[in-house]
Amino acid sequence: MKRTDLALEARELWREKTSSALPPGAETETREEGGSTLEALAVTSEEAAAALGKGVGKYITIFPEALLRREEGAFEKAAALLGRELRALLGLAEGASVLVAGLGNEAITPDSLGPRTLRHVLATRHLVASLPETFGAFRRVAALATGVLGNTGMETAELVKAVTEKLRPDAVIAVDALAARRLGRVCRTVQLTDTGIAPGSGVGNARRELSRETLGMPVVGLGVPTVVDAATLAADLTELSGRGEAAPEDFGEYGAGMMVTPREIDQQISLMARLLGYGIDLALHDLSCADVTALVG
Amino acid sequence: MKRTDLALEARELWREKTSSALPPGAETETREEGGSTLEALAVTSEEAAAALGKGVGKYITIFPEALLRREEGAFEKAAALLGRELRALLGLAEGASVLVAGLGNEAITPDSLGPRTLRHVLATRHLVASLPETFGAFRRVAALATGVLGNTGMETAELVKAVTEKLRPDAVIAVDALAARRLGRVCRTVQLTDTGIAPGSGVGNARRELSRETLGMPVVGLGVPTVVDAATLAADLTELSGRGEAAPEDFGEYGAGMMVTPREIDQQISLMARLLGYGIDLALHDLSCADVTALVG
Amino acid sequence: MKRTDLALEARELWREKTSSALPPGAETETREEGGSTLEALAVTSEEAAAALGKGVGKYITIFPEALLRREEGAFEKAAALLGRELRALLGLAEGASVLVAGLGNEAITPDSLGPRTLRHVLATRHLVASLPETFGAFRRVAALATGVLGNTGMETAELVKAVTEKLRPDAVIAVDALAARRLGRVCRTVQLTDTGIAPGSGVGNARRELSRETLGMPVVGLGVPTVVDAATLAADLTELSGRGEAAPEDFGEYGAGMMVTPREIDQQISLMARLLGYGIDLALHDLSCADVTALVG
Amino acid sequence: MKRTDLALEARELWREKTSSALPPGAETETREEGGSTLEALAVTSEEAAAALGKGVGKYITIFPEALLRREEGAFEKAAALLGRELRALLGLAEGASVLVAGLGNEAITPDSLGPRTLRHVLATRHLVASLPETFGAFRRVAALATGVLGNTGMETAELVKAVTEKLRPDAVIAVDALAARRLGRVCRTVQLTDTGIAPGSGVGNARRELSRETLGMPVVGLGVPTVVDAATLAADLTELSGRGEAAPEDFGEYGAGMMVTPREIDQQISLMARLLGYGIDLALHDLSCADVTALVG
Repeated sequence: MKRTDLALEARELWREKTSSALPPGAETETREEGGSTLEALAVTSEEAAAALGKGVGKYITIFPEALLRREEGAFEKAAALLGRELRALLGLAEGASVLVAGLGNEAITPDSLGPRTLRHVLATRHLVASLPETFGAFRRVAALATGVLGNTGMETAELVKAVTEKLRPDAVIAVDALAARRLGRVCRTVQLTDTGIAPGSGVGNARRELSRETLGMPVVGLGVPTVVDAATLAADLTELSGRGEAAPEDFGEYGAGMMVTPREIDQQISLMARLLGYGIDLALHDLSCADVTALVG
Repeated sequence: MKRTDLALEARELWREKTSSALPPGAETETREEGGSTLEALAVTSEEAAAALGKGVGKYITIFPEALLRREEGAFEKAAALLGRELRALLGLAEGASVLVAGLGNEAITPDSLGPRTLRHVLATRHLVASLPETFGAFRRVAALATGVLGNTGMETAELVKAVTEKLRPDAVIAVDALAARRLGRVCRTVQLTDTGIAPGSGVGNARRELSRETLGMPVVGLGVPTVVDAATLAADLTELSGRGEAAPEDFGEYGAGMMVTPREIDQQISLMARLLGYGIDLALHDLSCADVTALVG
Repeated sequence: MKRTDLALEARELWREKTSSALPPGAETETREEGGSTLEALAVTSEEAAAALGKGVGKYITIFPEALLRREEGAFEKAAALLGRELRALLGLAEGASVLVAGLGNEAITPDSLGPRTLRHVLATRHLVASLPETFGAFRRVAALATGVLGNTGMETAELVKAVTEKLRPDAVIAVDALAARRLGRVCRTVQLTDTGIAPGSGVGNARRELSRETLGMPVVGLGVPTVVDAATLAADLTELSGRGEAAPEDFGEYGAGMMVTPREIDQQISLMARLLGYGIDLALHDLSCADVTALVG
Repeated sequence: MKRTDLALEARELWREKTSSALPPGAETETREEGGSTLEALAVTSEEAAAALGKGVGKYITIFPEALLRREEGAFEKAAALLGRELRALLGLAEGASVLVAGLGNEAITPDSLGPRTLRHVLATRHLVASLPETFGAFRRVAALATGVLGNTGMETAELVKAVTEKLRPDAVIAVDALAARRLGRVCRTVQLTDTGIAPGSGVGNARRELSRETLGMPVVGLGVPTVVDAATLAADLTELSGRGEAAPEDFGEYGAGMMVTPREIDQQISLMARLLGYGIDLALHDLSCADVTALVG
């Protein structure tokens, strides 16, 4: 199957293959809110999961259209929407604590979404106890830039598990760059899911996943597509140019270890990292965007 | 005289020495606006300039108090105030073009204010002609990170002059980190002046200045104190601890080439660079803060 | 014609099309030296230039094979070879001065070769006069990170011309990331040419060139392929997979603004930037690799 | 007592106070090797430890004089010396594994020594098993950039303990920026000690230590002084200027949260981070400097 981290594209591939909108056991719902379109996909059976190649759980895709059109106030609205959806997906009790894990390699621009998001995430765990008069109303949040296997010698999942076993947070938010099938989707959608994340699937080989099964607590995966897999691109281009059907595997050796990314990726990642960071802060604390700006710089 | 880049501190030193508020030929005015205090100093005679150690011209110091208290909406208000004051100081005709020069060394945290401000500055010079339907209403703005002599082999003033002779902008905005005398002022004020800037005076030896005299066009200097000179610090500490009068020169050899800076300087510089960048964009174009966020990420 | 910045690939495309090794007026020569292979191509007539799509001049391609095999002492040998070839191509008189221009966007990993090379380049112009006892034997070298049009509003060629008109160096070395046709060449060769460089051709649309014609002095272009053009990749993949002939233009719209790059590009760029920086220092001064390490950190 | 992280300065303070060279239970030895001077201090009794304000253990201070004089081959010799001393201090069995922890904040130049050292450290833990033919002879090494409390919400010691409990390495090397009392020592010495490290003592309040006691395995602290404490500086300057005795506490409030650092700190940190990284690689594997260059870029 063509590789994608996006539920949206998994659904699309199903439709192309079967001419039916969705397999039984999967449901979708779309709505507009504050200049963004939101598509929710619920995968409720193992059969549907197998058909779509996506685990049982909820997938929310936000298209921040007004923001991409640069409309007045669109950033605040998109961050607020993301914050609300993330908060609902986490379903945390009052006072519950969270670990935010930023996955990926800061030195590779399209893989830097995770660590760059952390720049905008308020780490409060150490402040809640030490400065209760100022931070007593904040949720305890820790933040971890996981780095990548090649630099650390540790699987991302292994490192995150080490930290959750020590800190025992009530939930994990894992932020990572994702791979899309279509170039036109790069840096144009945000995906949230309560099924967790498979680190490195965006720009490398999938490694061990971060999920409720592996970590023993709720794990929300939060990501933005930043690359297209080279082999997937080649397969799609072949079909688009009328040269018949093709599969990524046809080009596997040639495209292995390659990623395709827009030339202006740096500025796009900046904006998306800011959106995700603010969305996380708004989901976890009772703050406004202005508060976040003053607190994180 | 004790070294400072701040007009505010030059005035203070005068008062300490003479017990008079200001020398003849200098006037000051203070007002509050939108959560910030603004102090304007006008130096109108060469005598006043010599007495204060500051050239003839206008100096505006903004204390963004509400922002530092993290009040709701304070960033937008402080950026708007800075934008208005900068616009007034520049006094540009419609369609006039501008070069924004970011001075300093991005790799030295307290010297990185200039290049980090540029991350938030919209460069539009190439867009106004090529995309008139979108950018026709924008002013033509170019942006130059000058680097520092040790890395480039070029004096900052020499490089900026080379570029202004080629581009022939109508004005220059030069952004640089400044040196303060008091630690408590670091990252807590913004200074604008139509007298230009002496690059590197903040964290190195003063080199050739950027000013109307040297560049042949209006030059507004825009800066934030990010360091305290080590020798100045020592002199002040000596006096504060009741050990008698002292001058920076007493400690010159020992403190030469050293800078004193807060430990949490990175986050403070981030916020100040963002404030300056947005202030510049608002001064030069008809934009809101939300527009700037969408355009610069 | 399929797009490539590599003389090596231009020659290859000619051979594929014509089944002759080279057009009349072009000559090639290959030799091995210290663990590297070196291929020199001389284009001596306008006819040959038109046939190959490469200007009249010399093109030297170095394959640092021992370095890529991580052999003992290979870095020093490859840097020395590059230094000698660069020195020969520049043909500078004693005491002649040089501007090294690092092109590209430091924030986009595969486009960061130019600015990252500058980290290893000794800027000496300011030292030769001020510290003659230490630096009197050094050549005067200035270094300029040009940034990119989207961030500066200035064409790279325009900025470099402004600086050369001011500094009047005797030659320019322009370092930039290049585009290759084959993924297997990315970060595996170094190209030097006395024909200059077309900035941004590596990862963006070609803009005005840097050359003797435009700058009025010798310009050596120095680069390493770091990306493959998405449309070129698609065309090649199509042919490779037995789906018939294809041209990049067939995929132009789909792949426009996209680049293809290896996932482990960061470390490869680090090594290549170091190699280029040391090669430049060895070409311009009488230094050893150990000297360069001590001087540039 | 005046604050310093350097055993060398602790010894100096003892001598100033008592006019005796060392307290009973402490011994020192000095030797020259390959252009560096090495001073070993052994603290063998609790009494000596209390007198010096340094725990029982070994402290090795390397002065890489030939490197700082930029002598030919000095980097390789200094790295080899550091590698040998580190290897001896670790005393690892064949096949024993190591975690290298880089402490500090990469965004604050003088606090970036730890994470910048990691750029030169080979992480091999994941390779030894997966690529035994290439990496079978390598020691298993993992690398962790710990970040700082303000950004992560986690004490450094807490995070390192979480990781060591998971990975169970045989030893830890903790790299951190240190605080010196004298400006002239900044970036001019390397200190190794088998007593571990108190993270953040270099540029912030001391937090929980990393040591055999807290982690349950040998911990070697490796550092370079990069800052001077502002209050310590003021006290020293007062005495130097003949204004009588002074203690850092006299200036505590004024200098709190401030650090003093050289203006050219970036390049000095680059060289020291490279030296430390290579020293670590040479201590842990059978490699030459040339190997390390080829492997880490």
